[in-house]
Amino acid sequence: MIMTKNLSQIKESVFQANLDLPNSGLVKLTWGNVSFIDREEQIIIIKPSGVPYQSMTPENMVVTDLDGNVVEDNLKPSSDLSTHVVLYKNFPKINAVVHTHSKWAVNWAQSGRDIPAYGTTHADAFYGDVPCTRSLTTSEINGDYEAATGNVIVETFSKRNIEPLSIPAVLVNGHGPFTWGETLSKAVENSIILDEVAEMALHTEALSYNRRISQDLLDKHYYRKHGLNAYYGQKGSTKNFI
Amino acid sequence: MIMTKNLSQIKESVFQANLDLPNSGLVKLTWGNVSFIDREEQIIIIKPSGVPYQSMTPENMVVTDLDGNVVEDNLKPSSDLSTHVVLYKNFPKINAVVHTHSKWAVNWAQSGRDIPAYGTTHADAFYGDVPCTRSLTTSEINGDYEAATGNVIVETFSKRNIEPLSIPAVLVNGHGPFTWGETLSKAVENSIILDEVAEMALHTEALSYNRRISQDLLDKHYYRKHGLNAYYGQKGSTKNFI
Amino acid sequence: MIMTKNLSQIKESVFQANLDLPNSGLVKLTWGNVSFIDREEQIIIIKPSGVPYQSMTPENMVVTDLDGNVVEDNLKPSSDLSTHVVLYKNFPKINAVVHTHSKWAVNWAQSGRDIPAYGTTHADAFYGDVPCTRSLTTSEINGDYEAATGNVIVETFSKRNIEPLSIPAVLVNGHGPFTWGETLSKAVENSIILDEVAEMALHTEALSYNRRISQDLLDKHYYRKHGLNAYYGQKGSTKNFI
Amino acid sequence: MIMTKNLSQIKESVFQANLDLPNSGLVKLTWGNVSFIDREEQIIIIKPSGVPYQSMTPENMVVTDLDGNVVEDNLKPSSDLSTHVVLYKNFPKINAVVHTHSKWAVNWAQSGRDIPAYGTTHADAFYGDVPCTRSLTTSEINGDYEAATGNVIVETFSKRNIEPLSIPAVLVNGHGPFTWGETLSKAVENSIILDEVAEMALHTEALSYNRRISQDLLDKHYYRKHGLNAYYGQKGSTKNFI
Repeated sequence: MIMTKNLSQIKESVFQANLDLPNSGLVKLTWGNVSFIDREEQIIIIKPSGVPYQSMTPENMVVTDLDGNVVEDNLKPSSDLSTHVVLYKNFPKINAVVHTHSKWAVNWAQSGRDIPAYGTTHADAFYGDVPCTRSLTTSEINGDYEAATGNVIVETFSKRNIEPLSIPAVLVNGHGPFTWGETLSKAVENSIILDEVAEMALHTEALSYNRRISQDLLDKHYYRKHGLNAYYGQKGSTKNFI
Repeated sequence: MIMTKNLSQIKESVFQANLDLPNSGLVKLTWGNVSFIDREEQIIIIKPSGVPYQSMTPENMVVTDLDGNVVEDNLKPSSDLSTHVVLYKNFPKINAVVHTHSKWAVNWAQSGRDIPAYGTTHADAFYGDVPCTRSLTTSEINGDYEAATGNVIVETFSKRNIEPLSIPAVLVNGHGPFTWGETLSKAVENSIILDEVAEMALHTEALSYNRRISQDLLDKHYYRKHGLNAYYGQKGSTKNFI
Repeated sequence: MIMTKNLSQIKESVFQANLDLPNSGLVKLTWGNVSFIDREEQIIIIKPSGVPYQSMTPENMVVTDLDGNVVEDNLKPSSDLSTHVVLYKNFPKINAVVHTHSKWAVNWAQSGRDIPAYGTTHADAFYGDVPCTRSLTTSEINGDYEAATGNVIVETFSKRNIEPLSIPAVLVNGHGPFTWGETLSKAVENSIILDEVAEMALHTEALSYNRRISQDLLDKHYYRKHGLNAYYGQKGSTKNFI
Repeated sequence: MIMTKNLSQIKESVFQANLDLPNSGLVKLTWGNVSFIDREEQIIIIKPSGVPYQSMTPENMVVTDLDGNVVEDNLKPSSDLSTHVVLYKNFPKINAVVHTHSKWAVNWAQSGRDIPAYGTTHADAFYGDVPCTRSLTTSEINGDYEAATGNVIVETFSKRNIEPLSIPAVLVNGHGPFTWGETLSKAVENSIILDEVAEMALHTEALSYNRRISQDLLDKHYYRKHGLNAYYGQKGSTKNFI
């Protein structure tokens, strides 16, 4: 049972978060999508498939159940919906997912490499290298492709024992980035940061004396912004939902 | 016999498509041109030569017959018209052609290399490497140069057995890109995508573990957007003309 | 005893200088901070921590004493305040400090390298290579980290015998740039110039015949803009405070 | 004897041409200058030194005689005036000069290399590689530096037997580009084109199969835009002054 008033607010928020992608220069044409999960109401709200940003409205946002079945007779959801669904099922602390083809993150995905933690800009948001998944197998590609994309992300975090909120980003091999967060704004912000550190890492390597920052510098920057002893920012500002 | 009302609408569409090039950052100064063919009316409508975008009007669009002879006493057509004419004659399914000197595609053209299909951003639009033509011979350059440019494109697609709508883009060796499509908007969109994947491919190579994506991932991404079993986007949205 | 009228003017100036960072493309999200010291009134005015630029007001600027203790009950100051405090104590001629994560300067900081003086654009602002500090030790990172960041900058300038106003910029190893100046506008301008020459230096190296400019060309460009015999610009324009 | 009405029109044109530099992204801060010579009236009109573009007015343009002596009691002229004067004296067909520190051209100047003619974008404007001068000697730097900068440009064109209007651009070694033309708009346009082809050439080399385009392709593209047999653009459009 969905409360109509709340739903229209969520649709508006998901709509705005989707618009943030082209406005931040992360998305060209229709190459991106943002979704939000309301775990109490048991619904997912996601961008419709292939609708230009200029003509998109909050009402166009598509509502599905937790398995990705459309619950309102409306536009088709983003074709990447199944990937979002898998992430929500396996990463219970996240409430928003963003997918883009932002160019610098894509470069790393296409090269099949993790983005190394070369500096504190990276460490402020990601506690370690941003992982790149293995390539999908032929049967994964020819089966339920978008779900397989989600599964290989989950596999990557599981095998490497990474907590999804400590590194809220991944590169899908040969494809591009997904990011997430506890809130819509955090998930979008992580996409912005990911593309910036992806560009920095590429040029850092070009300057040839590359090395990861030390573990203690990584710890310092990450934990002054995250966790119980964080002291960056104003009090109480880290827990705002949506 | 040209229907005046329809012609002025087509001129307006061709004018707008030409403006999309500088607005998308693909074209500086006057370095680009878009044309449209109305195969029923047997006319080609193309940007005039060397007119700045700021002062250009829909009425300035030049109308020619299918051999490129101007049929209205107006401005001179783009000096690349003969290339467009050759493409329309040899690629019967295309209705719009775009030429730019967009910088990332030009880099590949100047290096004389195909753009490899390094990722799904590429696969979503181009079913395989975007081909670069051979260099023109001295006699081709000193003869009907612009027609020879069209002919070497046709030769490239013919020799490699590429269907022009499956890879709606080419790099002319030492020169720059041409793209095309069934509609004006698709042809322009292909220029935008081409420059983006050209940039990504260059930086992907810089990251050194490069390889093409697998054939089945290429198939998956291309065919979820194209052909009978496409499921990306809203129903019925892929066939809009102009 | 702070004169209220003057203070509100300084807050406005510090606020504007902070806004100059995102407006110049040097700062994304909240990744930057500018401070000003009023050495007569013995106060430092600095950006608050983690406040978005869109909602920031001049009143939000935080006032501290010369040790960085907040003297107005207000927002928390930038978490980098201690670095600014160390710089003001050790570099008595500077009155403004800027910190950013501007991408091209960060690339050099992440590679742990000085930015070489490859051209006159560099020489116009910086009299020699822009130094990169050593890495911080584990105990420095786990102690008073932000003060240690200031100390390693001071150490770098002291060991290399560099006058801070002759090279008003530094790269903190693995982190990013700090710049300063006699005035707010000069400190911000130095951040703009630093990022530009950092980009130029990276691409100059890519072009492979790199070498520093000669000492006398460095002297010529620096001293036609700086010092008693400067003849660049209009008379009397180099000494405006704030 | 200067005709006042005409002079104010020229000042307005020089002012607008100077504004075109930051508007085209070629110039940051005050790093550029444009001048115009009225060979009949025997005056040079140039941007004042170090005046921000935002506060500059047409009246601020400085008028000098053909030796660079200020003939109106006004602001100081650009410190690069002497370079412009040398170019006007030695290149009698040019009527406008532009100097910038545009980043891609500067990269080549800092690497001390000519920009190779890698493609038709280059050939459309420059009939061959854009030359980079030798470095200035210590005595040239410490003498009349700005005149020496002009002299080394003239020496470069003379030794290599280049007609200044066939390659209306140069890189001063370790410094940056100068461009020129018969008109103000052509000189500014050449700066725009120079920076674009400088960027393309750098990335073309990164793609590793680099080679100059053939002499006949260079001839074709240059001469379809220039000279008696040019057929690009509208009739009579290539000779507009100012």
